[in-house]
Amino acid sequence: MQPTFRYIMTSSMADKITPRSEDFPQWYQDVVLQAKLADHSPVKGCMVIRPNGYSIWEAIRNDLDDRIKQEGVRNAYFPLFIPESFIQKEADHVEGFAPQVAVVTHAGAKDLDERLIVRPTSETIINSMFSKWIQSYRDLPLLMNQWANVVRWEMRTRLFLRTTEFLWQEGHTCHATHEEAEAFTQRMLSVYQKLAEETLAMPVIAGMKTEAEKFAGALRTYSIEAMMQDRRALQAGTSHNLSTHFAKAFETQFLSKEGKLQPVHQTSWGVSTRLIGGMIMTHSDDQGLVLPPRLADRQVVVIPIFTKNQESNDKVKKAAMKLTEEIEKTQLPSAWHQRVRVLLDLDESKKPGWKFHEYELIGIPIRIELGPKDLEKNQAMITRRDRSEKTPLPLNNVASFVESQLPKMQKDLFQKAKALRDESIHQASDYREFKEILDRKGGFIEVSWKPDTEIEKKIQKETQATARCLPVDDQFNVQSLDRPCFMTGEKNGTVKTIFAKAY
Amino acid sequence: MQPTFRYIMTSSMADKITPRSEDFPQWYQDVVLQAKLADHSPVKGCMVIRPNGYSIWEAIRNDLDDRIKQEGVRNAYFPLFIPESFIQKEADHVEGFAPQVAVVTHAGAKDLDERLIVRPTSETIINSMFSKWIQSYRDLPLLMNQWANVVRWEMRTRLFLRTTEFLWQEGHTCHATHEEAEAFTQRMLSVYQKLAEETLAMPVIAGMKTEAEKFAGALRTYSIEAMMQDRRALQAGTSHNLSTHFAKAFETQFLSKEGKLQPVHQTSWGVSTRLIGGMIMTHSDDQGLVLPPRLADRQVVVIPIFTKNQESNDKVKKAAMKLTEEIEKTQLPSAWHQRVRVLLDLDESKKPGWKFHEYELIGIPIRIELGPKDLEKNQAMITRRDRSEKTPLPLNNVASFVESQLPKMQKDLFQKAKALRDESIHQASDYREFKEILDRKGGFIEVSWKPDTEIEKKIQKETQATARCLPVDDQFNVQSLDRPCFMTGEKNGTVKTIFAKAY
Repeated sequence: MQPTFRYIMTSSMADKITPRSEDFPQWYQDVVLQAKLADHSPVKGCMVIRPNGYSIWEAIRNDLDDRIKQEGVRNAYFPLFIPESFIQKEADHVEGFAPQVAVVTHAGAKDLDERLIVRPTSETIINSMFSKWIQSYRDLPLLMNQWANVVRWEMRTRLFLRTTEFLWQEGHTCHATHEEAEAFTQRMLSVYQKLAEETLAMPVIAGMKTEAEKFAGALRTYSIEAMMQDRRALQAGTSHNLSTHFAKAFETQFLSKEGKLQPVHQTSWGVSTRLIGGMIMTHSDDQGLVLPPRLADRQVVVIPIFTKNQESNDKVKKAAMKLTEEIEKTQLPSAWHQRVRVLLDLDESKKPGWKFHEYELIGIPIRIELGPKDLEKNQAMITRRDRSEKTPLPLNNVASFVESQLPKMQKDLFQKAKALRDESIHQASDYREFKEILDRKGGFIEVSWKPDTEIEKKIQKETQATARCLPVDDQFNVQSLDRPCFMTGEKNGTVKTIFAKAY
Repeated sequence: MQPTFRYIMTSSMADKITPRSEDFPQWYQDVVLQAKLADHSPVKGCMVIRPNGYSIWEAIRNDLDDRIKQEGVRNAYFPLFIPESFIQKEADHVEGFAPQVAVVTHAGAKDLDERLIVRPTSETIINSMFSKWIQSYRDLPLLMNQWANVVRWEMRTRLFLRTTEFLWQEGHTCHATHEEAEAFTQRMLSVYQKLAEETLAMPVIAGMKTEAEKFAGALRTYSIEAMMQDRRALQAGTSHNLSTHFAKAFETQFLSKEGKLQPVHQTSWGVSTRLIGGMIMTHSDDQGLVLPPRLADRQVVVIPIFTKNQESNDKVKKAAMKLTEEIEKTQLPSAWHQRVRVLLDLDESKKPGWKFHEYELIGIPIRIELGPKDLEKNQAMITRRDRSEKTPLPLNNVASFVESQLPKMQKDLFQKAKALRDESIHQASDYREFKEILDRKGGFIEVSWKPDTEIEKKIQKETQATARCLPVDDQFNVQSLDRPCFMTGEKNGTVKTIFAKAY
């Protein structure tokens, strides 16, 4: 049996959670704070990730790290600080990031000769190293990733969704040709889609960003877009084809097989702690966090019900310990790369009702109660976090039930979220209809549109909706709806586009 | 079989490594750079950790993270930035760290109202949160850890050993009593000792730091001290009993069972990427990195020897693939928490001699060669990285040989390092003898000493040696040598103390 320890800090009862129907943003903040996932820090816009939240990040990180390594990418670590002059080398990049950076001007009790930027992203510092390491085509492809903290000074912040400092991974690769770089950009977006759908149980739409929404310095950006329960979109991960933009600025060149010096073709791609916010807003309910089992630090909690009868308590405790050991031997699907972790709560100072409430709040997927009356009937009571009913089950069947229900719950959460997402995709054939749907229903609005940055700005200004993406098919081709442009009526050059109000 | 991928960047042959006997510091830098463990960055004092080095950090981190969680500690994440006023709240702390900090004065295109320190360590920002989270004795003990980057502006830096930015873990705990805090401080030092000795195969001496060497803000600091091949000491990890110093400064208080408001008793403890430098200087040789198998990203490399005969090459390749699969099925000791990872090098563009040199340089523990002549004899040639001889072995026995040799090599490396360390501990009964040994032999000098900060400063000034620690026994008691003080001849108040020149 695993060591039991103080799992949650529990000296005070949590406050009431605002219902989603009443105030969705307040509901979100209530869940994050009361489930002790994160907290506001004394530094403006910076959050503290508490153990209940950090364990979710660990699960995401471990899962994604495996997927990234499967692609032949290796991890490295580059400096936190970037000389200010580096940021200025790529014209679009400086325009995009300069207003958001934090600057170190003073260190070691002296003013610095050159100011240092706290990295908002690392294309520039990494290229300064790549240009030193890469000489010939034999050094390509070069595939690296780093897990790091980055800082972007934000005006309005929200726990997990938008914070001044956040944790992420950023992958950076170099290739000999445009085609290879484009293929790798797409490949990593597919990895993110699998992470979101298989591990976070969060359905996403893969697509291409418009010119206005692409990464500062990229040729092209792909993203995965999720939908929250309030029918707002959330960008959950991006993958950029950087072409030779940074390579030219930093002279990251290689000698080709033909003996020609050429700039490398690059990609970069990242997901962040924002995923946790998206996962919460996809699955959770008015009782608190609902956690896909694959992300749960403890997938099962066993709660023996104690009474004033010490002899009965001893029996119940012994049975609960035996049950815990049985459940710990069950197998999770091999793709999960983990074993079942069970929390056995033997604390006699807390009432069962208090515990039920607390474990519901922090989202432990399966709760098992075992009281003296259950023991007489040789049964336990099982509750799945995403369902309300308690089910009695013979003690002998509990472990195999857990084994089958954890993967089932993972799939059910995905299906439930996908059903909501699918019913929230609406077609609009003109701007009037577009605005009407946006006001009345929200969700993803699918239109036939001829991309145009000026029109995009106008739509955003008038409706707050933004072009989320141009959805792509399995071959990463944008699609046509065979309809005229919903804004101009033009017939040529239109593509299927999704607009939505977004986080 | 695991996907094969470009494992090392190999377009250019490595330069010659300076022998240890000629110039130890240069040897160290040659190994780090040529084995592509780390590189200098354009930011003064900041290093880049390259994949070959970062995989060692991942192995250390995964291993230690398990050990920390076994103690009931959970991971969290606190902000990178600390308001400048926080650092100033604890008098010793500000004195110790103020000269070393980097300061953000400007962010989001504006001057900041309050300057932000880039964390050199996180006691202050963490206490500002603990004081909010802790109300009563029921919230104690509170046991947290974070894996993070920290920044300390250093004058003279060396890759891994002393860098401006480094990666580490810092644990922070709160307890109801002094005794509990002291016990936990000691417990975590023992965890570090096990990490160093079992996982890094690096023998260490556990002891207490002198007043002059303790952490800025601590009541007491314990450390583990290792010895490098040049007979210099390296502090490899520290654990601090902070008493109520920070708790009082930040009002981190709890209501006791008796209803009294009291400051909590705290500990903090950390190890960093410096461990990688210590591990290198403990085991490596003039051919490059020697890596304990427990830290190796790939424990085994299989190198089929190709000739100009394509038919023979096909056979050799097939046999090498079969052998690789067999080795991948072998079991490592369960405490290692990992499976054997084998690199199969099928690259036909590189000569075997080039490959042998390269894999020796990056320290893959076991090398297996398989050529057409070996195949005729149904054998393979095995070389352990820490031994020079090649051994032929029947193909059927290779997998079980690997299974037994990897744990054996781990132990042998520890024993070899321990033998060197033990023979480099010298006794000195007076200052004359002390200086003579220091000049002639180096190493750890064990003396009977009555601790005195003024005398400690004088010794350091005159000899560059510092008091490494007051060694403790299993009960964490300092020890007596029953000899008068080597500096003053005083008989009372002396303790066994180890001095050495240190990194």
